[in-house]
Amino acid sequence: MVAGIVGLGLMGGSMGLALKGVAEVGKVVGYDHNTQHCKTALEHNLVDAIVGWEEIKRSDVIFLAIPVEGIIKAMRQLEDVDEKCTIIDLGSTKAKIVESIPPSIRKNVVPAHPMAGTEKYGPTAAIANLYRDRVVVLCNIEGSGERQRILAQTLFEAIGMRVVTMDAKEHDRHAAYISHLPHAISYALANAVLAQEDAENILILAAGGFKDMSRLAKSSPVMWEEIFKQNRDNLIEAMDHFEEELKVCRRLINDSDWDGVKRWMEEAKKLHEIL
Amino acid sequence: MVAGIVGLGLMGGSMGLALKGVAEVGKVVGYDHNTQHCKTALEHNLVDAIVGWEEIKRSDVIFLAIPVEGIIKAMRQLEDVDEKCTIIDLGSTKAKIVESIPPSIRKNVVPAHPMAGTEKYGPTAAIANLYRDRVVVLCNIEGSGERQRILAQTLFEAIGMRVVTMDAKEHDRHAAYISHLPHAISYALANAVLAQEDAENILILAAGGFKDMSRLAKSSPVMWEEIFKQNRDNLIEAMDHFEEELKVCRRLINDSDWDGVKRWMEEAKKLHEIL
Repeated sequence: MVAGIVGLGLMGGSMGLALKGVAEVGKVVGYDHNTQHCKTALEHNLVDAIVGWEEIKRSDVIFLAIPVEGIIKAMRQLEDVDEKCTIIDLGSTKAKIVESIPPSIRKNVVPAHPMAGTEKYGPTAAIANLYRDRVVVLCNIEGSGERQRILAQTLFEAIGMRVVTMDAKEHDRHAAYISHLPHAISYALANAVLAQEDAENILILAAGGFKDMSRLAKSSPVMWEEIFKQNRDNLIEAMDHFEEELKVCRRLINDSDWDGVKRWMEEAKKLHEIL
Repeated sequence: MVAGIVGLGLMGGSMGLALKGVAEVGKVVGYDHNTQHCKTALEHNLVDAIVGWEEIKRSDVIFLAIPVEGIIKAMRQLEDVDEKCTIIDLGSTKAKIVESIPPSIRKNVVPAHPMAGTEKYGPTAAIANLYRDRVVVLCNIEGSGERQRILAQTLFEAIGMRVVTMDAKEHDRHAAYISHLPHAISYALANAVLAQEDAENILILAAGGFKDMSRLAKSSPVMWEEIFKQNRDNLIEAMDHFEEELKVCRRLINDSDWDGVKRWMEEAKKLHEIL
């Protein structure tokens, strides 16, 4: 089986590395509109070959590891793939993608969101075990063909992932709270601290806590601008709920209600009975 | 030299372990009002012996690794130490501690804040290399005796720390932004997500980003309630600045000003030219 990967950044490059270890996959070919990314991907052995769009279209399975708007466009250029072809998109938000799959290839497509990533990006960020032991969410697979569903599940499990299924709209709402809101917060923290503190003091005083909390603010602005755009309404709702919680904390501190502060912290700490 | 450690939790226990590797320190003795902590500290070899308060007072150097209010109280019970004794407190906020040192032992005291820690606490959380390669801030050391200043610096360097000095009030303002605000945010994020998401979805969807952002919410509510109390005014100011940044982000998203969102993220990303 030939696997074609469109987009050779962190997600696509790491998928190339992972698929090389899967017995069913004979060859991994890659495509990226950025020629420097193609060159780097070959140098780092992320894929076996760089190919043109027509050859990508002939792959048995095509991974779309590009931003959401690029995925929506690419789908339109894949309307003439073979009926046996499987198209797996790795977009971070799913509802708009699912809505815009051309009906003629709906059965070919398995919308997927691997819950994996780092704040790094581009082909040099690719790592072979990015997906291992992580969850992948497959969305609205009742619309995918049986052949495609089975192949997607087989490949994700072969690279060490746990497969779960979910409605795309539900996925986007959860992702707003558990992934997109934390990014917004991390960027806001970085901006607040940069406005108030000079570089030397940040460097002196930053311990592990601040480093963890500001790590997500290293993420690609181009990529995250788009994710925020795609999931705008859910993200605004999540930000509102977060702001409410912060206001509770601020009011308790302002009122010097220290027992209240402690109880509020104890509530939050329950999260770690889960995680 | 005998080192006495008051408080055998994460900070004190780790200090015990670290000091055991320092040539100048012949014996490490410990004290904790919690008898279970004393037992655990001995079992884990954090200190060589558990002793009473009178013996702590005869130590050459006394580390106060307890909450700020405990430190302030303990100082009053140390007014009769030998003039050669060095007292090093490890409190997270410094201005109130510096203000309340009894004048008769001001020269004995070196106020210190090691920029190290984890979200875990208690003697079982102690680790030998907690302090290695981290910064320790010494505050208002112009009030400390020369002997005490030199000993504190020698010991902190011997356990692998980089020593910097700072005014206590400045320290507290910086700490509000770089340590206390991130904790408030992490607790607020945990509460917002717990209120909106069920345990199963959190577990399925939480990737590294959310885990990092919510890790600080595992910290001890008892300890952090006190830190928030000690640094109330600075923390409120820091929360206000953070809230402003979050509002900027929310407004840009609400206005669908995606170029603006990207520029705002690019500003934040500059933090990582520093860290």
